[in-house]
Amino acid sequence: MKYFNIEALQKLPSRHRAHLINTCTGYKSANLIGSKDKNGITNLAVFNSVVHIGSNPPMLGFILRPLTVRRDTYHNFKETGFFTVNQITSSIIKAAHHTSASYNHDISEFSKTGLTEMYLDDFFAPYVAQSNIKIGCSYINEYTIKENGCLLIIGAIEHLYLPENIIQDDGWLHLEKADTAAIIGLDGYALPKLLNRFNYQQPDELIKTIL
Amino acid sequence: MKYFNIEALQKLPSRHRAHLINTCTGYKSANLIGSKDKNGITNLAVFNSVVHIGSNPPMLGFILRPLTVRRDTYHNFKETGFFTVNQITSSIIKAAHHTSASYNHDISEFSKTGLTEMYLDDFFAPYVAQSNIKIGCSYINEYTIKENGCLLIIGAIEHLYLPENIIQDDGWLHLEKADTAAIIGLDGYALPKLLNRFNYQQPDELIKTIL
Repeated sequence: MKYFNIEALQKLPSRHRAHLINTCTGYKSANLIGSKDKNGITNLAVFNSVVHIGSNPPMLGFILRPLTVRRDTYHNFKETGFFTVNQITSSIIKAAHHTSASYNHDISEFSKTGLTEMYLDDFFAPYVAQSNIKIGCSYINEYTIKENGCLLIIGAIEHLYLPENIIQDDGWLHLEKADTAAIIGLDGYALPKLLNRFNYQQPDELIKTIL
Repeated sequence: MKYFNIEALQKLPSRHRAHLINTCTGYKSANLIGSKDKNGITNLAVFNSVVHIGSNPPMLGFILRPLTVRRDTYHNFKETGFFTVNQITSSIIKAAHHTSASYNHDISEFSKTGLTEMYLDDFFAPYVAQSNIKIGCSYINEYTIKENGCLLIIGAIEHLYLPENIIQDDGWLHLEKADTAAIIGLDGYALPKLLNRFNYQQPDELIKTIL
């Protein structure tokens, strides 16, 4: 077993530490956030930090890096109020990863990746046509993490599009059937296989599988 | 394609909506958070919301549900300052899931799951012996998400234990070799297989794999 204490972590080269710390907490969600400024210039960016915030009302959150440089995603949803969350499938991982290149604001990542802009039900922000699960969100709030200047962004889920055949009877989504990928750290992509689902747990009751 | 607008989402039965909204944002990280109160009673709880906050200094975050009932994990790290994050492997998913049963504060989930308490380098909070990746954290701060009362908890990563053979030359961890699981929603567990790693992206450069 390898052991790092905080002093050992601090002595690591910056990029090495970034890979280690980004990967040590496990697989992350794989999503593309789509947005558009008021002049119609679209933006698309890969995020590995989308988390569940609440179901009633439906909300999600994600972590945005400090605003030390212009962040097009942030600029766009602050200016217009809207963004989309589009799930990354295994067949678009290369294109999704290329959205991390830093293009100028006036160049859309859609035009550089082969991913297709799509508009649904008059929603302002663009969806990714190739994504199997698409979520339309309104920007609600942000919390500045004062320890390092990152932001937690809160979005309200207002539109949800997904393939009918991945929805189980109780509302749970069979993500393996949707070809959904997971992210490892800054640059790794994985494809999960479902192991099991378990029942709601009560003290001292035997666990049951519900698949 | 199935479509839900916000009105349709709000009309769903509460549990159905919870499954749908918890799963629609993709796979989540699979970790057990270990803690201990000042009287020595340990606690262990499954979390699917651990995210990366920063590498310099190394920090992680996770979402805690509203404090409308006693939350032992919260009580313990507020009282003592420490908690551990222990990665869930495919061989302990049943035991990990059972920690979601609501046992009284004076009953340790370690005693009900077969997971083994482990103490390393005099750290106050218990690790899970069966976890391949173990992280010792100090509680730093919390942010109340006023939209629904959830909390974002920030922890400083101060100790990190992991198998030597999963560490790549550049610090990136090969989670597939660590048997790390991912979580789907509230009750599903999956095992990812690595697809690829890509190089740092520059505008208009061809993407390369770095595996």
